[in-house]
Amino acid sequence: MRALEFWFEFASTYSYLAAMRVEDLARAAGVPVVWRPFLLGPIFAKQGWTGSPFTLYPAKGRYMWRDMERLCKAEGLPFRRPSEFPRNGLLAARIATAADGQEWLPEFVRRVFRANFVDDQDIADRQLLAALSSEEWLARAEAAETKDRLRERTLEAERRGIFGAPSFLVGDELFWGNDRLAQALAWARES
Amino acid sequence: MRALEFWFEFASTYSYLAAMRVEDLARAAGVPVVWRPFLLGPIFAKQGWTGSPFTLYPAKGRYMWRDMERLCKAEGLPFRRPSEFPRNGLLAARIATAADGQEWLPEFVRRVFRANFVDDQDIADRQLLAALSSEEWLARAEAAETKDRLRERTLEAERRGIFGAPSFLVGDELFWGNDRLAQALAWARES
Repeated sequence: MRALEFWFEFASTYSYLAAMRVEDLARAAGVPVVWRPFLLGPIFAKQGWTGSPFTLYPAKGRYMWRDMERLCKAEGLPFRRPSEFPRNGLLAARIATAADGQEWLPEFVRRVFRANFVDDQDIADRQLLAALSSEEWLARAEAAETKDRLRERTLEAERRGIFGAPSFLVGDELFWGNDRLAQALAWARES
Repeated sequence: MRALEFWFEFASTYSYLAAMRVEDLARAAGVPVVWRPFLLGPIFAKQGWTGSPFTLYPAKGRYMWRDMERLCKAEGLPFRRPSEFPRNGLLAARIATAADGQEWLPEFVRRVFRANFVDDQDIADRQLLAALSSEEWLARAEAAETKDRLRERTLEAERRGIFGAPSFLVGDELFWGNDRLAQALAWARES
């Protein structure tokens, strides 16, 4: 049995689906989860994309919204298409990076995703994020050390083959997309 | 209950996975299948892609080969990474277009996919395709009417929101990717 690394980006719709489900499913499988916030922007930029593939490729974007609707309904998860997409998840990712290993991290992550994809709130907003964590953690999030760590995490994601979110790593074995969560957990359990 | 339209491209790895499974799964679900060959090239070109995303984006490509290996193993399907990718599926798609509604079409489609992704054969080869169909059907494939029909099919795919392969349509409801086959069949059954 090995740990499952859950790599996610706060702007990503399919990361929302995975973030809401990973803890319960991993517990049922007896697999520990390592939460790994990272930024897709720099990885997309190196592929020559100036934004989200869902805005760059309109047909893909239209499909994604419909797919999200169907999947959330099937999973019993609330979902509202946000009025702005993709939102800037940088500060939220910095808080999650600073909070590495904290017991409250998974619940903070879910709250940010719900703010974005259920309550249509601006997850770049300092006040919202302070309410979801604390002023103290905001200060840690903005420390140079945290900024560096998130930058390094994003480089690590790229080095390890990640090109989209959510992604799951079990050792070197990469699984891409919310659709692969069950398969990744089975891999972790059997490794 | 409605029919499932199965839109596929002979060069596409994930279309191989779907093509090998769709007939049995649809039969079990009591859903009729309409086989719809089309060409991804013109659709990708309109998105500004000069080739397959799996060659344009190397990290995505490396992942896809590993993902295919795992998925084929899990489904009990043979798979060998072809020495050339993507292969040119134009002539095969023309034969499949000419053979619309023929009883032997599904088996022909599977044979072409196996030639590409199991036996590492060049599916653009006239002789191979004659052996998998017949000289008579090759002649029909190359008739102007068939060429026009395939061109029209590809435009239809785009009009109906298709941006990748395989895709499944149940009326206007679009499902993208081999991963959505079960969901698409459930939709067809319940419609």
